[in-house]
Amino acid sequence: MKAFEFHNPTKVIFGNGTVSEATGLAVADAGSKVLLVYGKQSIKRNGTYDKVISSLKAAGLTDVVEFSGVKSNPCLSHLKEGVAIAREAAVDVILAVGGGSVMDEAKGIAAGVFYNGDPWDFYSGAAAPEQALPLIVVPTLPATASEMNSGTVITNDVTQEKYGFFSEHLFPKVAVMDPELTHTVPKDYTAYSGVDAISHLIEGYFTGDAKWTPIQDRYVEGLAKTIMEATDRILENPEDNEARSVMMWSATLAWNGLGVSGVGNMGFPNHMIEHPLSGRYDIAHGAGLSIVIPAWMRFVLDRYPEKLARFAREVFGLDSAEEGIDALEAWFKKIKSPTTLAEGGIPAEEIPSIADDAIKLGHLWGISDYTHQDVVCILNSAAK
Amino acid sequence: MKAFEFHNPTKVIFGNGTVSEATGLAVADAGSKVLLVYGKQSIKRNGTYDKVISSLKAAGLTDVVEFSGVKSNPCLSHLKEGVAIAREAAVDVILAVGGGSVMDEAKGIAAGVFYNGDPWDFYSGAAAPEQALPLIVVPTLPATASEMNSGTVITNDVTQEKYGFFSEHLFPKVAVMDPELTHTVPKDYTAYSGVDAISHLIEGYFTGDAKWTPIQDRYVEGLAKTIMEATDRILENPEDNEARSVMMWSATLAWNGLGVSGVGNMGFPNHMIEHPLSGRYDIAHGAGLSIVIPAWMRFVLDRYPEKLARFAREVFGLDSAEEGIDALEAWFKKIKSPTTLAEGGIPAEEIPSIADDAIKLGHLWGISDYTHQDVVCILNSAAK
Repeated sequence: MKAFEFHNPTKVIFGNGTVSEATGLAVADAGSKVLLVYGKQSIKRNGTYDKVISSLKAAGLTDVVEFSGVKSNPCLSHLKEGVAIAREAAVDVILAVGGGSVMDEAKGIAAGVFYNGDPWDFYSGAAAPEQALPLIVVPTLPATASEMNSGTVITNDVTQEKYGFFSEHLFPKVAVMDPELTHTVPKDYTAYSGVDAISHLIEGYFTGDAKWTPIQDRYVEGLAKTIMEATDRILENPEDNEARSVMMWSATLAWNGLGVSGVGNMGFPNHMIEHPLSGRYDIAHGAGLSIVIPAWMRFVLDRYPEKLARFAREVFGLDSAEEGIDALEAWFKKIKSPTTLAEGGIPAEEIPSIADDAIKLGHLWGISDYTHQDVVCILNSAAK
Repeated sequence: MKAFEFHNPTKVIFGNGTVSEATGLAVADAGSKVLLVYGKQSIKRNGTYDKVISSLKAAGLTDVVEFSGVKSNPCLSHLKEGVAIAREAAVDVILAVGGGSVMDEAKGIAAGVFYNGDPWDFYSGAAAPEQALPLIVVPTLPATASEMNSGTVITNDVTQEKYGFFSEHLFPKVAVMDPELTHTVPKDYTAYSGVDAISHLIEGYFTGDAKWTPIQDRYVEGLAKTIMEATDRILENPEDNEARSVMMWSATLAWNGLGVSGVGNMGFPNHMIEHPLSGRYDIAHGAGLSIVIPAWMRFVLDRYPEKLARFAREVFGLDSAEEGIDALEAWFKKIKSPTTLAEGGIPAEEIPSIADDAIKLGHLWGISDYTHQDVVCILNSAAK
């Protein structure tokens, strides 16, 4: 184990019905002029919007400005609109209701309000936020763990760069996690969510440079198995509330900082290679990851032979690293998440250019152990 | 999974050398007039005291009042002395350097300073703290997880009652966790610490009433295996810093609230039965627990047959619940933690009276599924 700091002050209120019971009180505890951030119309169709508004009213909150239209792979231009609206209305608290995209954009707005420059500066590493508006989140899609971490990822719609950053000011104050809200998540996004959560687990597991990490290894293996079991149950029966609950909390725990605490220096090679895919081709992040992960694992077979063998054994009960990779890929196929560039609609001839973007992102993130040729090689293997 | 709230705002700074690097800054960030709480002379002998004082000085903190003499199974009368000293010196931050006893007593002082009544009221459930002084902790013994939870346990030296309570005001602000400080923990206390940490894991695992808890089950099983492995390594070589590090963080994670989040209603039967043992006979809490746990597990074989079988399989790779219990007991014996009342120096003829105390504590904690006869039966089986 290596040295680390862990500090996660987000309060989680988890359970069926919590959106109605707890949202208003949590927001009222943080402010009185609310910016309500959400995506498209789905939260209106499935009743979540009404529950949120009722809960706000019951807590005496009527000064609510709505800012909707956040899209999957949220973009900078929309974030800037949000900053302008938040400033104009002089809101003092932000409530984000939606998936990782909505929460991430809301974080960018929360920090952007106090910043005179372009909020992209945070994402490009040119500046760091010194403060942010308090943020309450009601996640509707378990995947990114944005509800209990300090990270945000945004796509620059001019450059198509998909960048992210962490800041201690961006932990949501309260995450109201109501598994019932996730019953309407369609099968494709349920699958992508499972992939996304697993991707968060494996980066530190494989790339961390600490010598002996039994706590973190078992944490990752246990959550990976659980996420696969829960996803399978949900795809069988989308109304399976037990499975929806387990999936929701697993996804949070997969990227709330605990699994990587103590693993030492680590990289994000799968995310480095995937971001250009979803950033350029607007596919779901999880869909991009299921394309990248098996190809990446085969590429690093010689780099992490013992860890890949351990993963195969502990997660799948299999005897070799290769079998473990095959099993993970087979599971991606089973849940119908793409495993080739073609399935993701990504033209193979653009691999060199995608690799350019990945390497550029790697520089920003301090990842130096992949050459352009390495990334091309990984993507070529995903093209087959 | 059941509904839960999870909120743990303690910041952990973990790693070799952190006591010198981080203690002073963490304290200075919270206040300027410091009450330094510690136990006997061991922190002076092993150099920890000097490191702490140097770090405080380097951060410009010279207004430090010392309050030492906290004993294992810390007692109410001493806690009250601490409250008086803290008030007289008008300290605005408390720094606790020591094991669970020191941290727990420091928590009682932190809350007691603001309370006009007897601080025992908190422990007996007659009152709840409304505020507390900020607390920074430097744990020197990994066991109770007091460094990252809101609990405190104190023994009333008049009544010999050993009671505890939780309060959101009692989370340490910062836990400076330096594994090197634990190298001098002797073998007996190393063993008791392992038992204590395991005891925290199993209460929710076995008694929680939620139906499907794969996240929590695997979390517990992974940590239990890890704690046994790390303890074995430490007993082999007390200077094994890797093992000391893993043990330190495992013990924290075993009782920081995460493992029980979502398990539903749960009891603390092992703690209910053990508290009278260490409260009355002044043995180490972990030593009392290794006496109680195997006897309790055999008693609940019919109550939790599947979970005990799962524990045997996942933690020990064994085929039956009975074999699992035997294996755990054998491990307690191997690490030389007592497994009978006689080994703990506890007179068997006092079993009925011990059971009286346990039942009384059970009432306080809302544990209603053990009769006096049940507790006698469990203790009788531990008397053999």
